[in-house]
Amino acid sequence: MDINEAKKQLMELQSKMSAYMHAMELIYYDEATSAPKKTAKNREHALAILSSEFYQLSTGKETIEMLEFLDDRKEELNQKEKRMVFLLLKDIRQMQKIPMDEYIAYRSLLAGAYDLWRSAKENNDFEAFRPTLEKIFETNIRFAGYCAPEKDPYDYWLDQYEDGLNKEICDAFFATLRARIVPLLEKIKAAPQVDDSCLFGNFPEDKQAKLSSFLMNQMGIDPGHCVLGTTEHPFTTSIGSHEDVRITTRYDESNFSFSMFSVIHEGGHALYDMASDEDLAYTTLDGGVSMGIHESQSRFYENLLARSKAFTSFILPTVKELLGEGNPALANASAEDFYKAINKVEPSLIRTEADEVTYALHVMIRYELEKKAMAGELAVKDFPAEWNRLYKEYLGIDVPDDKHGVLQDSHWSGGSIGYFPSYALGSAYGAQFLKKMKETVDVDSDLSKGDFSRINTWNKEKIWRYGSLYTPEEVLERVLEEPFDAGNFADYLEKKYTEIYRLTN
Amino acid sequence: MDINEAKKQLMELQSKMSAYMHAMELIYYDEATSAPKKTAKNREHALAILSSEFYQLSTGKETIEMLEFLDDRKEELNQKEKRMVFLLLKDIRQMQKIPMDEYIAYRSLLAGAYDLWRSAKENNDFEAFRPTLEKIFETNIRFAGYCAPEKDPYDYWLDQYEDGLNKEICDAFFATLRARIVPLLEKIKAAPQVDDSCLFGNFPEDKQAKLSSFLMNQMGIDPGHCVLGTTEHPFTTSIGSHEDVRITTRYDESNFSFSMFSVIHEGGHALYDMASDEDLAYTTLDGGVSMGIHESQSRFYENLLARSKAFTSFILPTVKELLGEGNPALANASAEDFYKAINKVEPSLIRTEADEVTYALHVMIRYELEKKAMAGELAVKDFPAEWNRLYKEYLGIDVPDDKHGVLQDSHWSGGSIGYFPSYALGSAYGAQFLKKMKETVDVDSDLSKGDFSRINTWNKEKIWRYGSLYTPEEVLERVLEEPFDAGNFADYLEKKYTEIYRLTN
Repeated sequence: MDINEAKKQLMELQSKMSAYMHAMELIYYDEATSAPKKTAKNREHALAILSSEFYQLSTGKETIEMLEFLDDRKEELNQKEKRMVFLLLKDIRQMQKIPMDEYIAYRSLLAGAYDLWRSAKENNDFEAFRPTLEKIFETNIRFAGYCAPEKDPYDYWLDQYEDGLNKEICDAFFATLRARIVPLLEKIKAAPQVDDSCLFGNFPEDKQAKLSSFLMNQMGIDPGHCVLGTTEHPFTTSIGSHEDVRITTRYDESNFSFSMFSVIHEGGHALYDMASDEDLAYTTLDGGVSMGIHESQSRFYENLLARSKAFTSFILPTVKELLGEGNPALANASAEDFYKAINKVEPSLIRTEADEVTYALHVMIRYELEKKAMAGELAVKDFPAEWNRLYKEYLGIDVPDDKHGVLQDSHWSGGSIGYFPSYALGSAYGAQFLKKMKETVDVDSDLSKGDFSRINTWNKEKIWRYGSLYTPEEVLERVLEEPFDAGNFADYLEKKYTEIYRLTN
Repeated sequence: MDINEAKKQLMELQSKMSAYMHAMELIYYDEATSAPKKTAKNREHALAILSSEFYQLSTGKETIEMLEFLDDRKEELNQKEKRMVFLLLKDIRQMQKIPMDEYIAYRSLLAGAYDLWRSAKENNDFEAFRPTLEKIFETNIRFAGYCAPEKDPYDYWLDQYEDGLNKEICDAFFATLRARIVPLLEKIKAAPQVDDSCLFGNFPEDKQAKLSSFLMNQMGIDPGHCVLGTTEHPFTTSIGSHEDVRITTRYDESNFSFSMFSVIHEGGHALYDMASDEDLAYTTLDGGVSMGIHESQSRFYENLLARSKAFTSFILPTVKELLGEGNPALANASAEDFYKAINKVEPSLIRTEADEVTYALHVMIRYELEKKAMAGELAVKDFPAEWNRLYKEYLGIDVPDDKHGVLQDSHWSGGSIGYFPSYALGSAYGAQFLKKMKETVDVDSDLSKGDFSRINTWNKEKIWRYGSLYTPEEVLERVLEEPFDAGNFADYLEKKYTEIYRLTN
């Protein structure tokens, strides 16, 4: 084989892979947004075949020969080619270890799992989802054993979502947060509480949808390349390349802040995914590098920017104009009232509605539960009881039913076990990014005018445009120019909430 | 090769083909319903690869060997297998004649054409669509030359949408209709006109959407397998198999009858597509057999059933309840007023809004135009002028702009040249089906109660369940038990409109 021919084949392979991904991602997106409800079997049929074709394409003999040929000639590859070969071989060497029939069976299982989870949640019926959830956990443990027999299964999956992550790092990371968040939360609980009644009322979906459009426009999201759908659980997905990104939200007519911040959160993911350099399209480097870095962007926009005093002051007049009719307290709210309401801290049942302070505790609960289950120390049938016990222990609240408990998140139905910690990591990365950004960008001044252009440019130049070219570790090094330290996040929380709740030391 | 092995491969081939079709159909559906507007290039990339894979799969050496092996052993095949082999070989023998690069280029061209057409129509800018439309006509002529060099190119394409159709048959068919419709139309024009003002007013989209749901439910369309979307031009598509069918409509807030009858029309297509026998799923026999038979079903529901006195009487109270606020004339309309308004005859600009009497003339105009263009006697650049001339000649009206003229239909943007005649054929088939159905089903009595169950059962048992097992000719023979005669349609029109307009002979 000739090196130039092999390089050409490398690009053709990725181009083909992206077409299959386009099809499969669209089938999943369609399932969540538009498809008739009784069509799971039909989707499973198509996905089983397409994923089998994808598997054969990406792990076939010719593909492996080409990639190993290039891997043996790293010195003749540019930086991007080197990274492509590394990532493709990493995936292939893992996929090779999974028997094809098991891989196909797993894709089929997942194809039907979202619908099952959704209806189980609707009907508050954990038992209806349990057998599928058991199979998903069993399969993830088995696949980890195939792919990395030397590793602990949960370590294997944590590393899948965040390169280099494992239980040891997570344990230390969460310990740092716990040591500072728990005392902060105790002080907040003891202080006079914030009144957030202005967020509740009667806010018609079409008015909230107008706020969504306004926010997306303000954030600099090009509607020609990104549209918003509605789903039970908000998410972001790219269809084929960074040219086509979809975000979704859910409207709660009694509480507009849920969709408001979910749109900003998914918008952060979308900005990251959409901004890969043009030449990364249809390659494995297109789009964000890891879940941790991804969540650092989504939670950066959602919390560090959009829950700031500067941005809440900017957005309040628009919120009042669109939604003020839904509640007189909102129509009359001062900037200070609104800022405090948006940042009210209160132990609650639902992770996606949690404030910045308690959020990490919601994540820790999922982490503890997954850790036990992946170690074989907790059966799926015992998830509801363990979930409820942990909510009592960490947050001091009683879970009334599984709909508001163990069934609330869609992640497991998609096979994502080990994903949750990246939310907390992302928050912590983001706090340190913001500190760095403020060295050169007057973030608060820009946000007070609703102007994201300099913020987006900073993120684009430092992070987004490289897609998956750099590892998460390299991204952190390049951006921060100092080691990552979760203490920055704790500092941020302490400063912000000491002021909001007028806490004393 | 062993016969049983070959039969197994036959089923596997079709199963795989259906997965690629699933992906491609969903990409087209998504383009029309949800995709961000500037993503055409991204879709073209995926479609080029998927269609190339589909092409290789369905025309590959192994596939052809297997099919020819089975074709040589017809006596060992059952009826379904025989028909599958025939249809697959027919397609392959045609596709084989098209050079693969040209086939891929054509699929790419079509992938971007819908967006181009849509924006050209929005902007009333024929020139923006002209170069693409020229390429589509050129390619269709060239492909006809590859596939059937012995045939006239337009005859080739007419036959693609309706087995056995050609210009000679069309000319005779349209001559029959013209000979009876034109005098009928003249009499109607001379008679006192119908007042249809009750159909116009202010009808909010969400109220119209409720009417759509009511109609779909009444028609017996299972929402678990068929959902309604909104698009510029209504259509029906199956995603992968008859298990998942999508229909679309467009809401005009000043005129509810447009979406009302488009939902019933597309609902007719959907009922047909959804009712294939279970064992036809993931085979080439799944879904309706031809465009003519398909339109016979859609126009059967839209016109022969839903515009009848019986059904309009049934639906009026629901229409009043949902939409009566939009116009006092509607709120106060009698069953007779509403029936007449719904059936008002008037030469008009838009085919999809045309009444039953003038509809065939709209089709004839497209037929005449396509016939000339496919014969090389009319250049695409001259379409607008010729279109406008024909509308003046056939319908006596002036076309104000291309948006309401030559740009109104999406068909050509999808490569469908030769499709239009099947609408008129479908109407004519339908009239004769209704005559036959009335021999055993009390259609009017059922419709006056909004009950489609016996009507659907009749259609299912006689037509739908067989999918594409029988040729259109066989379907007609089996259902009618006498030769097809366009005169039945003319009889139907004369009888109905003589009564509505109180015409005398």
